[in-house]
Amino acid sequence: MLACLGPGVALATEEVPSLAGNALAIARVQTNADYIWTLTAAALVFLMQAGFAMVCGGFTQAKNVGNMMMKNLFDFAFGALAFWMLGFGLMFGTSPSGWFGTDGFFLSGYTAGGDTWTLAFWMFQVVFAAAAATIVAGAVAERIRFRAYILYSIAVAGFIYPVFGSWAWGGLLNGSGWLEGLGFIDFAGSTVVHSVGAWVALAGALVVGPRIGKYAPDGTPRAIPGHSLPLATLGMFLLWFGWYGFNAGSTNAASTDVALIAVNTTLAPAAGAVSAMVTSWLLFKKPDLGMSINGTLGGLVSITAGCANLNPGGAVLAGLVGGILVVLSVVFLDRIRIDDPVGAVSVHGAGGVWGTLAAGLFDANGFSLGQIGVQLTGIAACFIWSFGTGFLLFKAIHATVGLRVSAEDELVGLDVTEHGCKGYHDITLSAVK
Amino acid sequence: MLACLGPGVALATEEVPSLAGNALAIARVQTNADYIWTLTAAALVFLMQAGFAMVCGGFTQAKNVGNMMMKNLFDFAFGALAFWMLGFGLMFGTSPSGWFGTDGFFLSGYTAGGDTWTLAFWMFQVVFAAAAATIVAGAVAERIRFRAYILYSIAVAGFIYPVFGSWAWGGLLNGSGWLEGLGFIDFAGSTVVHSVGAWVALAGALVVGPRIGKYAPDGTPRAIPGHSLPLATLGMFLLWFGWYGFNAGSTNAASTDVALIAVNTTLAPAAGAVSAMVTSWLLFKKPDLGMSINGTLGGLVSITAGCANLNPGGAVLAGLVGGILVVLSVVFLDRIRIDDPVGAVSVHGAGGVWGTLAAGLFDANGFSLGQIGVQLTGIAACFIWSFGTGFLLFKAIHATVGLRVSAEDELVGLDVTEHGCKGYHDITLSAVK
Amino acid sequence: MLACLGPGVALATEEVPSLAGNALAIARVQTNADYIWTLTAAALVFLMQAGFAMVCGGFTQAKNVGNMMMKNLFDFAFGALAFWMLGFGLMFGTSPSGWFGTDGFFLSGYTAGGDTWTLAFWMFQVVFAAAAATIVAGAVAERIRFRAYILYSIAVAGFIYPVFGSWAWGGLLNGSGWLEGLGFIDFAGSTVVHSVGAWVALAGALVVGPRIGKYAPDGTPRAIPGHSLPLATLGMFLLWFGWYGFNAGSTNAASTDVALIAVNTTLAPAAGAVSAMVTSWLLFKKPDLGMSINGTLGGLVSITAGCANLNPGGAVLAGLVGGILVVLSVVFLDRIRIDDPVGAVSVHGAGGVWGTLAAGLFDANGFSLGQIGVQLTGIAACFIWSFGTGFLLFKAIHATVGLRVSAEDELVGLDVTEHGCKGYHDITLSAVK
Repeated sequence: MLACLGPGVALATEEVPSLAGNALAIARVQTNADYIWTLTAAALVFLMQAGFAMVCGGFTQAKNVGNMMMKNLFDFAFGALAFWMLGFGLMFGTSPSGWFGTDGFFLSGYTAGGDTWTLAFWMFQVVFAAAAATIVAGAVAERIRFRAYILYSIAVAGFIYPVFGSWAWGGLLNGSGWLEGLGFIDFAGSTVVHSVGAWVALAGALVVGPRIGKYAPDGTPRAIPGHSLPLATLGMFLLWFGWYGFNAGSTNAASTDVALIAVNTTLAPAAGAVSAMVTSWLLFKKPDLGMSINGTLGGLVSITAGCANLNPGGAVLAGLVGGILVVLSVVFLDRIRIDDPVGAVSVHGAGGVWGTLAAGLFDANGFSLGQIGVQLTGIAACFIWSFGTGFLLFKAIHATVGLRVSAEDELVGLDVTEHGCKGYHDITLSAVK
Repeated sequence: MLACLGPGVALATEEVPSLAGNALAIARVQTNADYIWTLTAAALVFLMQAGFAMVCGGFTQAKNVGNMMMKNLFDFAFGALAFWMLGFGLMFGTSPSGWFGTDGFFLSGYTAGGDTWTLAFWMFQVVFAAAAATIVAGAVAERIRFRAYILYSIAVAGFIYPVFGSWAWGGLLNGSGWLEGLGFIDFAGSTVVHSVGAWVALAGALVVGPRIGKYAPDGTPRAIPGHSLPLATLGMFLLWFGWYGFNAGSTNAASTDVALIAVNTTLAPAAGAVSAMVTSWLLFKKPDLGMSINGTLGGLVSITAGCANLNPGGAVLAGLVGGILVVLSVVFLDRIRIDDPVGAVSVHGAGGVWGTLAAGLFDANGFSLGQIGVQLTGIAACFIWSFGTGFLLFKAIHATVGLRVSAEDELVGLDVTEHGCKGYHDITLSAVK
Repeated sequence: MLACLGPGVALATEEVPSLAGNALAIARVQTNADYIWTLTAAALVFLMQAGFAMVCGGFTQAKNVGNMMMKNLFDFAFGALAFWMLGFGLMFGTSPSGWFGTDGFFLSGYTAGGDTWTLAFWMFQVVFAAAAATIVAGAVAERIRFRAYILYSIAVAGFIYPVFGSWAWGGLLNGSGWLEGLGFIDFAGSTVVHSVGAWVALAGALVVGPRIGKYAPDGTPRAIPGHSLPLATLGMFLLWFGWYGFNAGSTNAASTDVALIAVNTTLAPAAGAVSAMVTSWLLFKKPDLGMSINGTLGGLVSITAGCANLNPGGAVLAGLVGGILVVLSVVFLDRIRIDDPVGAVSVHGAGGVWGTLAAGLFDANGFSLGQIGVQLTGIAACFIWSFGTGFLLFKAIHATVGLRVSAEDELVGLDVTEHGCKGYHDITLSAVK
C-alpha cells in the first residue's frame, strides 16, 4: 500500500509498523532531508565560484580576463583536490592538540567505514575551502604568474585555511579546536573563510606590489577601471544567491533555523548596498556602481558570522556599518598604496572583522563583554596565522618559481603572455561611437 | 542508536517512542522539509533579480548598462528594506477591513513571539515584492533619474504592491483580502506580481515619455537595438530557472503538488517561445531573438496564475496564446508611441491579464462563467489600483525631485552622467571589423 | 496542536495517532522530500541550458552569437514539446519488445489517472532530453540553417534520444529495455545522454562539413577563436552547477546516496580540469583556457555514468583520464578535418565512452570482465543507433529543406542573415587599444 505513495525509500515500517520502527523511520526521513539540504546548499555555494570569477573579471582589464577565468577555475580544481588529499583531514580530523586534525585524509573516513555523512559534510566544506582560496585572486590580479597562483591556491585550500578552520570548526566533525573551546561565534565564516582569504590576499598584494601605472610618480592613486560592469554585477548577484547556501546551509540540517538565517542574509546585504551607495555619493558626488557592488558583498560578509544569532534588526545594522566600512577601507588602502584591484581585502577583511564583532555586539541572546573578548581573540588569531603564513608563502614563491610577470608581459596583458589567448575577439560588429 | 543515522535534529522520540511522540516528530520533519523547500525556492526567485538585470541591460544601450545594473540592485536593496519595514505588514498583517494589513511591521511577529514561519514566509514574499518593483525598470529605462527610481522602488515594494497583494493573498498569513474572498485564482501572481509591476511600468512610461530618437518626426517608431543579445538571453534563462521557485515554491510546502506546477512552468514558456518566434517570423520575415525571449517570458507569466490548476495541455495552450499576445502587444505599444525599451508592459501586462484569464478558462476542475467574472474583477481592480497609484506616484516625483534626466545627459548616457562610470572599457582587443 | 508547528501538510495522524497511520504519514513525508529533491535537481539541470548557450556562444564568433542563443532556446522549447508529445512515451512507456515504449504520450499517465509521480519524473527527464539535443548545437555551429536546426532538435528530443533511452532506462518507470536487462551501468547518462548527443553531433559535423576558412588549402587546420572567453567560462560554471542536479538528482529520491554522487561530481571535473590544462601546457607550451574548460566538462561527462558506484579515488582517476582524452580528441578531430567549433564531440563523445568504461573499470563493488563487456555493448549500441539515425536525419534535411546556409551568409554571419539582428551594438564606449 505504501508503494503507491511514490518512489519513497524503503521504510522499516513497511511490513509490520512498530513504535520503535516508526521512530527509526522518522529519523531516517529527517536524515534524508538533511542530506538534500546540505547538498543543495553546497551546489549554491559552488556557484559562488562563478560569482567570484565574474566580479574579478569584470573589475579588471579586458586584457587579463582570460587569466582571471583560469585562476577562478583552478582555485577550485586544485583547491578541491588539495582539500581532499590534505585539507579536510587537517580541519576536521581527530585533533589531540586542538591545533590541527590528524586523520581523514583522502576521505578515508568514508572509504574505510562507508560513513556517508563524511561525504556530505566534505561536499559542503570543500566549497568553503575553495571560496577562501578564491578571495585572493582579486587582490593579486593582473600581475601574478599563473604558476605562482597554482602553488598559492594549493597552499591555502590544503593548509592555511584548514589549520585555522580546525581551531574554530573542527568540532563539527571529529576535531576539537581551541578557539571553539572558548565559545567563539562564527556561524558561517566571517573570520574562518572571509578573513583568512582576505589576510592572505593582503600579504599577496603587499609582496607582489602595485600594478604598473596604479600610482602616479608622486604617489597619487589612479583609477584603472574594470572592463565590464555587467559582468561584475552578474557576479555579485551570483555570490548573493550562493550565500543563501553558504549561510543557511551551515545548519547542515533541514531545520526551521534556516528561516532566520535567510532573512538576515537578505537584509544585511540590502543595507550594505544602500549604505555603501550613499557613502560613495557623499564622497565622490555620484552613486557609484562598483562601490555599491562591494558594499553589497561587504554586507554579506558582515552577516556571515552572526546570521544565526542576530535578529533581523541586528542584521540591518550589521550590514549598514559593513557597507560603509568597505568603502572607507577601499579608499584607505588606495591611499597607503596597497593595490587591490577588486577590493577583496576591504570586502572580506574589513567586512570579516566587523561581521565577527557584530555577531557578539548584536547577539540576540544578550551582550557580554567576555564574548567580545573571545571574538577579538579569534580575529587576532586569524590575522596572525593567515597574514603570517600568507606572507611567508608569497615570499617563498617569489624566491623560487617567481611571483610576478615581467613588466612587458604586464603591459601586454596576461591573456596573451600567460595563456596565448585573447578574452574577446571582434566583439564590436557595429560602428564604434 | 538514532544518533548514528546522521545529523538529524533531536527527535521527541529519542527516549521512549510513543504514538503521540512519533506523530509530533513526523509533523516536525514535514515542517523542516517545508522550510528548506520554501527557502530553496526563495533563493531561486532571488536569482530572477539577476535575470531581470541581464534582460534589461542586454536589451538597452551600452551607454546605460551601468545604470540598469544600479537599478536592479537597488530595486532589491531598497525594496527589501521597505518590505521589511512596511510592506509585509500591509500585505499579510491582520486586515480588519480586507483592504490592507495593520500589523507585523519590522517582522514584529517574529521578534515578539519567535514565530519562525513568519520569517520563512517573509523570505519568500520579499523576493516577490522586489520582482514587482523590478518589472518597471525596463519600461522607464535609459531616461529616468536614479533618485526618482529609488523613490519609486520604495513606493512599489513598500506600498503599491503590498496593498494590492493583501486583497488577493492576505489570507496566506494573518490577513483576509476581499478579492480572495471572492475566490480569485492567482496561484503565483500573474496579476498580483506581474500585472501590478506592468501597470506601474505603463504609468511610468507614459509620464516619463519616449526616449529621444525613438520616434521619427512623423511618428514612425525607430528601433533602438539592445547592446548585447547574449546578456539578454542569459537573463531569460535565469528568469525561467528562478520561475521554478516562483511557481512551485508558492505551495510553501514540500508536497507532491509541486510536480504539476513544475511541468506547467516548463511547457507554457516552451509554447510561448515557439508561438512568439513563429509570429515574429510571419510579421518580420525572420525569426527574431528578442521576440522569442519576450515570448518565453510571456509564456511564463501566462502560466503563473494557473500553474497549479491547469493540466499540461492547458499550460501549452496558455503559453501558445501568451507568446502571440506579447509580440502583438509590443508592436501595438510601439505604434501608439508608448516607449517600453524592453517590452516589460507587454510581457508582464498582456501576459499577466491573459494568464489570469487562462487560470479560469482552462481550469482542470471545470469551467464556470462565475469564475471568469471573478478573474476579470481581479484584473480590473489591479489595473485601477496599480496604474492609478503608479500614475500619481510618477507625477508626484516629476513635480518634486524630477523624473527625467536632461536631454544632454540622455544622449551622453546615464552611466557617465548619473554614476560617473562606463559600463565597458577597452573590451575589443583585436581589430574591429 | 500539530498545527502550530507550521504549514505542514495535513497528516493522517492529526486526529488519533495509530501505528499504521504514523507509518503512512512517514512514507508521505519521505515522498514529499523525494518530490522537492527531484524538482530542485531538475531546475538545476534546466540551468545547464544556459550553460550550453554561454559555452557555445563564447566559443564561436560574435557574428553568430544571436543564432547560438536562438538554437539553445529552441532546443529546449521544441525539445520539451516533442518530449511531451512523443519522446517520454517512447522512452518510459510500457515496452513489450524492450526496444521502445508504447504509451504515456502527452503525459496521459497523469491526465488519465492523476499520477503525480509521472509528472515529477517527466520534469526531471525532459531536461535530460533537451541536454542531449543541445550537445549538437556546438558541433554544427556557425553554418547550419535555423529551420534545419529546428527539425533536428525535434527529432533528437522526440525520437533518437528517447528510443535509445528506453533501452537503458525504460525500467525507471513503466518500460523494460534490453540494455538494462544486461546490467548496463550508466547511472546519470554518460552514454544515454552525452554519447547520444555526441554521435548525432558527429554525424551533423560530417554532413554539414567544415566552416569556410577552417582549413588552409593544404588542409592545415586554422584556429577560429571564440569571441568571449568570460562567456564560455560562465557557461562552464553553470554546467558544473547544473551537473549536481544531473547526477545527484538521478537518485530521484531524497536519500543519503546523494552525498557520494556529489563528491564524485566535484572531484572528477577538478581532476579533468587539471589534466587537460597540463596536457595543453605540454602540447602548446602554455596552459590553455579553452582546453581547461573542455577538460572540466570532460571530467564531468566521465563521472556521469559511474557517479554512484565509484569511490572518490576512482572519480579522480576517471576525471584525470577524461581530461587528457578530451584534449587529444580535439587535436585529433582537427587533424582529420572534422570541424567541431566548440569541441562537443570530444567532450561528450570521448568523455562519454570513457565514463561508461570507467563505471565498470573502477566499480567500487568490484571489477568483472563481464561487466566491461556489457559496458562495451552499450557503447557500441549507442554509436550505431545515434550516429546512424543522426546521419540519415541530416542527409534527409539536406535533401529537403536544406542544411547549410550560403557561403555569403556564412561570411556575413548568421545573426544578420538568419535573424536580422546583431549580437552586440556599440559595446565599446572608450577608445580601442
